[in-house]
Amino acid sequence: MGDSEITVARNYEKGAGGSFAGLDAFPMTGQYTTFALNKDGKPNYVTDSAASATGWSTGTKTYNGALGIDIRGTAQKTILELAKDQGFATGDITTSEIQDATPAALFSHISERDCYGPEEMTKDCAGETLEKGGKGSVTEHLLATRPDVTMGGGAETFAQTATAGEYQGKTLEVQAKERGYQIVRTASELANVSKADQDAPLLGLFADGNMPVRWAGPVAVRQGYLQPAAKCTDNPKRGAEVPTLADMTTKAIELLAARTEGAQNPAKGFFLQVEGASIDKCDHAADACGQIGETVDFDEAVQKALEFAKKDGNTLVIATADHGHSSQIVENVSEDDLRSAAEEAKLPIERVRDLMYPGLTLKLTTADSAEMTVSYGTSSDVAAEDETHTGTQVRIAAFGPRAANVVGLTDQTDLFFKMTDALGIKR
Amino acid sequence: MGDSEITVARNYEKGAGGSFAGLDAFPMTGQYTTFALNKDGKPNYVTDSAASATGWSTGTKTYNGALGIDIRGTAQKTILELAKDQGFATGDITTSEIQDATPAALFSHISERDCYGPEEMTKDCAGETLEKGGKGSVTEHLLATRPDVTMGGGAETFAQTATAGEYQGKTLEVQAKERGYQIVRTASELANVSKADQDAPLLGLFADGNMPVRWAGPVAVRQGYLQPAAKCTDNPKRGAEVPTLADMTTKAIELLAARTEGAQNPAKGFFLQVEGASIDKCDHAADACGQIGETVDFDEAVQKALEFAKKDGNTLVIATADHGHSSQIVENVSEDDLRSAAEEAKLPIERVRDLMYPGLTLKLTTADSAEMTVSYGTSSDVAAEDETHTGTQVRIAAFGPRAANVVGLTDQTDLFFKMTDALGIKR
Repeated sequence: MGDSEITVARNYEKGAGGSFAGLDAFPMTGQYTTFALNKDGKPNYVTDSAASATGWSTGTKTYNGALGIDIRGTAQKTILELAKDQGFATGDITTSEIQDATPAALFSHISERDCYGPEEMTKDCAGETLEKGGKGSVTEHLLATRPDVTMGGGAETFAQTATAGEYQGKTLEVQAKERGYQIVRTASELANVSKADQDAPLLGLFADGNMPVRWAGPVAVRQGYLQPAAKCTDNPKRGAEVPTLADMTTKAIELLAARTEGAQNPAKGFFLQVEGASIDKCDHAADACGQIGETVDFDEAVQKALEFAKKDGNTLVIATADHGHSSQIVENVSEDDLRSAAEEAKLPIERVRDLMYPGLTLKLTTADSAEMTVSYGTSSDVAAEDETHTGTQVRIAAFGPRAANVVGLTDQTDLFFKMTDALGIKR
Repeated sequence: MGDSEITVARNYEKGAGGSFAGLDAFPMTGQYTTFALNKDGKPNYVTDSAASATGWSTGTKTYNGALGIDIRGTAQKTILELAKDQGFATGDITTSEIQDATPAALFSHISERDCYGPEEMTKDCAGETLEKGGKGSVTEHLLATRPDVTMGGGAETFAQTATAGEYQGKTLEVQAKERGYQIVRTASELANVSKADQDAPLLGLFADGNMPVRWAGPVAVRQGYLQPAAKCTDNPKRGAEVPTLADMTTKAIELLAARTEGAQNPAKGFFLQVEGASIDKCDHAADACGQIGETVDFDEAVQKALEFAKKDGNTLVIATADHGHSSQIVENVSEDDLRSAAEEAKLPIERVRDLMYPGLTLKLTTADSAEMTVSYGTSSDVAAEDETHTGTQVRIAAFGPRAANVVGLTDQTDLFFKMTDALGIKR
């Protein structure tokens, strides 16, 4: 979610002169760099979500694909682990699979992000299985790390069976239950949860894979810029029992804040990670409506966090992105424009039509009742090859105590130090 | 110069973990929106430089192509004009033609930015000629507005002849001289200027058209991402007698600051606009080396401004962009990567090679001795059709009194009010 993605969503949903009540309300703003490293230590200018999340969650840059380890494979303590060890309540929520890179970077230490469960370990992470004295799969890391609150999709992997260790031969779901986790699968079940702590951590699994996105609409296509402007619609595949990110955020804050108020051993405070994961996923798929709807969904979650922080007075809220992406707002081009360009270039109009906007484009009618053309120019066929991340510095914004630390130019890894300092935890 | 352009230049020149001594040194940072309007008042999400410069120089949004007027054609006072009227020294410098959109938006009020001289008036601005009681061409506006210091390219237009008014039949160069302007054409001549004021305003004309850029290198091409990584070189077409933007900035500050110190009628302070114009022009041309060299050139100018402001203690320096642009940092892709992608997509490798990065790409070896691929994905042939501007919100950064006013989300037009407030001038 670079500045381009924020602007696309704002233009569509609020109009060019509008503003998001959450995302645009942060008083302190800056930019940070997001590059990853290659294993040889040289920069990789375009990070993936695993290396970037490892960067901000551990303060250590790593290679694309790696979670919670440095380029030499050494595990790095994450802010969630440090916070938990030092008496804080912790939460980790996302709209993707909870094993996906960003949520997993809070609790996992593994050489390859795809090793969700025991079955995937044999292929990509054979040296890190429980059998070989390793820490096992990403889902097993989660169950062992035991945040008070974990929510997202990714239920599917819990049907896999542990191949070694205390829970050998049992599914990860059974393991979770035996370890005391409360598992909820619907918005109603979530609404009924009144407590989550180390005796009964909350595990919300609201989809087999990634949670369905909020909005649907035509995806960008070749020469889509010449088609009539479209509007986004609600995603019909999303049922009422799928909580929004704002629902999950509200519940997580309620449960974690309650942990700080107990008579016995109250937590010192809480750390909560909230990811609007599918802004990126829709950008990969040149799905502008999906991307915009997920940005709106994320904004609503940010509003809930800011509401709490304003009342609380002692909470730092930070909103940022793990990397930039492909979508760009480009000029609206009409057939008349093409004709002029063709005349000027002395080329047939078909040729100019093809040369201009060589990627995938879509025209949308915005909240201004005006047309906006969005281009995805890093691939021209998302079936064969996704639109890619980009290496631009991205926005970081903050509210609350120490919010001013995000202003100016910083790096993604600096965020770990700002957050641990703000919590007052030792590294 | 969106965040993407800044990151491209930093990665190349300083390395991913490096920082520009000027551009990256601002303590206060925010984002602003840059949209233009159509004549019907609806947003045009992708501004051109004329509408954007009119936005920040007058506080009024307008349509693409217009300078110093609103969408109904009504002239709007610019910050340079207001500052001058109210006792400030003024300057306006650029690396483009001084008639180009950004510098012209400080002194011009015209319906079409291309009307540089009397000759262009007949085509695009026939209703605004001196003959018809209009204000004449952009260059004539400049001579009438009379900033203390004006520098850039654009000498060519001064050979044109006024077709009406006091200077009818004389070239614009003769007119400038008769009006008391000191004209300089080389870095040496500029170095020798010791004073510029309303008796003898400085007019630096260092090129017939735009000033030559600092750096050269291979431009991005189709499938350039598969070619060996290149390095940028000095532009051989740029002679020693072409001042850098830093040279012009240093001289302008010296001359304008001197205006505030005279015994008789000292100026209350000064307003100076400095544009690194060809970051944009090279981005249009998919010329990554040109673009990076111009960003370096701009950074050096910013350093000079910050040096002065730090000593002075009462100067506000603001660095921003008029709009985002097309260049994106994308993943480095090898033939092996293509082979894997082709296998996965069950497509011939030639097809995947073509689908991936459908725009123009270039691979560069950076200061990190690492490879960086830059993609220009809004056109696939800059001969037929330029890479286009983009509509993303862009960075605004500031140092000095009231610098904190740029933090958070604002609009381009807000900048006019921040600057006029800072100067204490009436609007």
